[in-house]
Amino acid sequence: MSQTVIELLMTRLKQIGVTDVFGVPGDFSFALNDAIDNDPDMRWIGCTNELNAAYAADGYARIKGRSALCTTYGVGELSALCGVAGSYTEHLPIFHLVGMPSISTQRSRRIVHHTLGDGQFDAYAAMTKPVVCASAILTAENAACQIERCIEAAGSRNRPVYMALPQDQADKPLPGEYVCAPEAPQSDPATLAAVIEAIAEKVAAAGSTVVLAGYLIARLGLRGAARELLGRTGLPFATMFMDKTALDETLPGYVGLYDGRIMNPEVRDFVEGCECVLNLGAIWSDFNTGAFTAHIDPSRMIAVMQHEVRIGHAVFANVEMRDVLAGLATALPHKPMAGPRAKGLGQPKGGPDDPITPDYLYPRWEQFLRPGDAVIAETGTVSMGLGFALMPEGAEFFNQTLWGAIGWATPAAFGAALAAPERRTILFTGEGAHQMTVQELGQFGLHGLKPIVFCLNNDGYLIERLLCKNPMSAYNDLAPWNYTQLPAAFGLTDWYCAKVTTNAALEQALARAETCGTGTYIEVVMDRMAASPLAQKLGESIKTLYASAT
Amino acid sequence: MSQTVIELLMTRLKQIGVTDVFGVPGDFSFALNDAIDNDPDMRWIGCTNELNAAYAADGYARIKGRSALCTTYGVGELSALCGVAGSYTEHLPIFHLVGMPSISTQRSRRIVHHTLGDGQFDAYAAMTKPVVCASAILTAENAACQIERCIEAAGSRNRPVYMALPQDQADKPLPGEYVCAPEAPQSDPATLAAVIEAIAEKVAAAGSTVVLAGYLIARLGLRGAARELLGRTGLPFATMFMDKTALDETLPGYVGLYDGRIMNPEVRDFVEGCECVLNLGAIWSDFNTGAFTAHIDPSRMIAVMQHEVRIGHAVFANVEMRDVLAGLATALPHKPMAGPRAKGLGQPKGGPDDPITPDYLYPRWEQFLRPGDAVIAETGTVSMGLGFALMPEGAEFFNQTLWGAIGWATPAAFGAALAAPERRTILFTGEGAHQMTVQELGQFGLHGLKPIVFCLNNDGYLIERLLCKNPMSAYNDLAPWNYTQLPAAFGLTDWYCAKVTTNAALEQALARAETCGTGTYIEVVMDRMAASPLAQKLGESIKTLYASAT
Repeated sequence: MSQTVIELLMTRLKQIGVTDVFGVPGDFSFALNDAIDNDPDMRWIGCTNELNAAYAADGYARIKGRSALCTTYGVGELSALCGVAGSYTEHLPIFHLVGMPSISTQRSRRIVHHTLGDGQFDAYAAMTKPVVCASAILTAENAACQIERCIEAAGSRNRPVYMALPQDQADKPLPGEYVCAPEAPQSDPATLAAVIEAIAEKVAAAGSTVVLAGYLIARLGLRGAARELLGRTGLPFATMFMDKTALDETLPGYVGLYDGRIMNPEVRDFVEGCECVLNLGAIWSDFNTGAFTAHIDPSRMIAVMQHEVRIGHAVFANVEMRDVLAGLATALPHKPMAGPRAKGLGQPKGGPDDPITPDYLYPRWEQFLRPGDAVIAETGTVSMGLGFALMPEGAEFFNQTLWGAIGWATPAAFGAALAAPERRTILFTGEGAHQMTVQELGQFGLHGLKPIVFCLNNDGYLIERLLCKNPMSAYNDLAPWNYTQLPAAFGLTDWYCAKVTTNAALEQALARAETCGTGTYIEVVMDRMAASPLAQKLGESIKTLYASAT
Repeated sequence: MSQTVIELLMTRLKQIGVTDVFGVPGDFSFALNDAIDNDPDMRWIGCTNELNAAYAADGYARIKGRSALCTTYGVGELSALCGVAGSYTEHLPIFHLVGMPSISTQRSRRIVHHTLGDGQFDAYAAMTKPVVCASAILTAENAACQIERCIEAAGSRNRPVYMALPQDQADKPLPGEYVCAPEAPQSDPATLAAVIEAIAEKVAAAGSTVVLAGYLIARLGLRGAARELLGRTGLPFATMFMDKTALDETLPGYVGLYDGRIMNPEVRDFVEGCECVLNLGAIWSDFNTGAFTAHIDPSRMIAVMQHEVRIGHAVFANVEMRDVLAGLATALPHKPMAGPRAKGLGQPKGGPDDPITPDYLYPRWEQFLRPGDAVIAETGTVSMGLGFALMPEGAEFFNQTLWGAIGWATPAAFGAALAAPERRTILFTGEGAHQMTVQELGQFGLHGLKPIVFCLNNDGYLIERLLCKNPMSAYNDLAPWNYTQLPAAFGLTDWYCAKVTTNAALEQALARAETCGTGTYIEVVMDRMAASPLAQKLGESIKTLYASAT
């Protein structure tokens, strides 16, 4: 008996290291659910809803490099779409497996549940196309090829792929054994040589060069190669917001976070003053550039991206980032240069009985971090406050800077904790974002995970208050939850929970979090308009940017 | 100064009765958020996330006939998509207003947050098209026409429409005052006359005729017309599951729920035994027909749908349901016929100290219902158990039979309660579905609404257990929440909460719910596999149906 469609799919996923699948079951996806559940080498990771499952898969992939999501037809897959789009935008390969009505049901054009009632069955696959890099509806006839095509695309483009499995196709035997894997993209040798030579010349000629360490270094698994390059050349490096901890912030050449004219003027002066800027995989988005206030003359910029390199105004296609980094490590001159020394947030400011302010909170959180921590920082004022903290060795800062879907962080923290249970997972979220996806907290308990959760309660959507015309507009208000009662309601009865309003109470809670040995939930209450400097300045700047666009 | 785009949009929405807008704010949608917030005749109804907002708008529209949803670009609108698709499928007109980056930002192709990072801005509008009946990106130049086109489409097709507003277009003055409203569809007079005559002949010739009262009667606001028709002719009527309470179940001609071969054999024998079946707006979907076991010879069927009529195998287009009903009320003969008398669930079975079983619970819930109740019944075993309860006068049963997205009911109940605060809103949900969207509970409190919530806890996804191969598959398990602690955690500190495991405890809780004067949350614990007869039989039947499709 030859292999079946579902057997091949599971085998191939395991071969590329995908063994944990986040999802919600459904009757059209039982073939997938059962295959995962029955396979001793795979794990079904149930989530409370599909959007949360997608965010959890995103968080997991940020640590493990890839992950999988399984939803049912229509209602499931569409609920996950915002999360999948986020992973697409932020360059994370997620295998989205979707259970679908059988081909014979599709042929009958019957009106079945989860359809639009029109006898059509291909609408959702089409709706998904803009946010995946490959998609397929698997059948016995096409599965061998389509599975390889999707795996190759996810691997080489580092973005989500969509594979729908009609339920009657799962157990069908494959028609034969043929190999049809598309070739992974390779650098064109001549272009690669020309690129390495041109970059080496430019760097040699420049009086000063700084590296921007972009998020693609982390996403594409090129940290080793980038460190090698920096070590051999002695070049200093900065990061931008989306790229934070793409390389370790304790490395000697780290000059700090570059955020245009908004923050860190000494880093800006240094970066913008260098004659050559070697950008390794960072993008020029609004929130990554201090609302487009980062200005580097294109003629001084070299950008090494996933499949191409730009030197000044010239584009070189068909060169892979991994090959360029390897080539540069030997071709670039050893040209060490001192830059500013990256600074952290300094000492917390405030007395023990004072209400908690950003001047106390963010520096104190920085001190709380330990080597190896996985920090999940929600979009909004909370990540803006933490973004300028200096991270310990091996600690990673995860944020969704480009996609910016509030609600992402809570389930993403669950995914990250599952991916690295041996590390501390620390979730920093604002309460407005937290409300969106809060129920995923309960899933930590199912897997014995013990995260540290900080929920910053400032009585509303603070980032919106900073950006809109009238901060006190009613739409920025939230229902007044009793946050510290949530863990127990979600079944986490042994968690340490505290609501803190003063610095002394915060200290006490942090001390308990260090030692309690259980999951921890700390609600930090701050004033309605208490925001970090970045949030305030970026708020102003973004307001001006988009107002001027009016 | 002529009217601006946003002024026209708000004015027209109010003119057609849309004054409550469900949503989540966002920086690209501030123009919309502010316009709603600043208008004394409109209300911003904040929700915890966009999917919940879409479900709440759906629930609201089931009572008020239409509603509005407002989300931000990308992250917001895509999160709402499953809910909008549900409203599309189930024929509910929702005005989905989406804030969008300004046209000048779009022209610049800059990489801004909430985009896919590719300088394109039209992907999401395209992704949305399959689940709306009209869509537009509003600009000063096109707004006057596009707003009218969308309003007309929502009204005449009774489905969601999508209007995106680039933020720099909101305050732009309209170029002129011209009228460009498309004409609403009208019945072709000759076709209408032919249809009325043909139906009248068929009914006159038939020895027996039964009406199927479909959901479109309720959706299109045709209850009065349908009652008139039934009153004049004396014809008996049945409903199917999706159509439950399309007409009042206390009307004299009601014979009960027709569910194919699954349930109510006496109703099936009567309906399938009639020589003519006059279907007023019901559709033949899997869960509406007892898994396609409802068999009516097409030659005996007349189907009056929204814009067309089918008589036997002939289709008559361009005839509006409202005109057909009005015509039939006078053209059909008075031909009263006795059918079976609709039956309820009978007396609860079990002793006071017994654990709660379906035989006790569902009949007891039926007794609990009062005239005028708005019942929101979640997809799954809980709605299947309640579906055969006989509903009191004016009580409505809301269910998402075709779309079937679990999680819909909790936010939909919030929307329904807001639409009709003077009625009792009763939510019946299973705990698996409840977990998906549970945080919307807190919003009841913000608006002083006092629903009665029944959360049926059977330790997992029971409907999935009934449908899958191995009921005890791990993917059917859920995190063990302490459900009755949820209201307090969500800020509903005055709610009456109870967890009941015996019939006596249930009785006590029901008595308190009647009199406590606050919101009520009752967790009903039943055995893992305790399902109503319909759920069990339909489970078997659906399993067979889709297995045979394998």
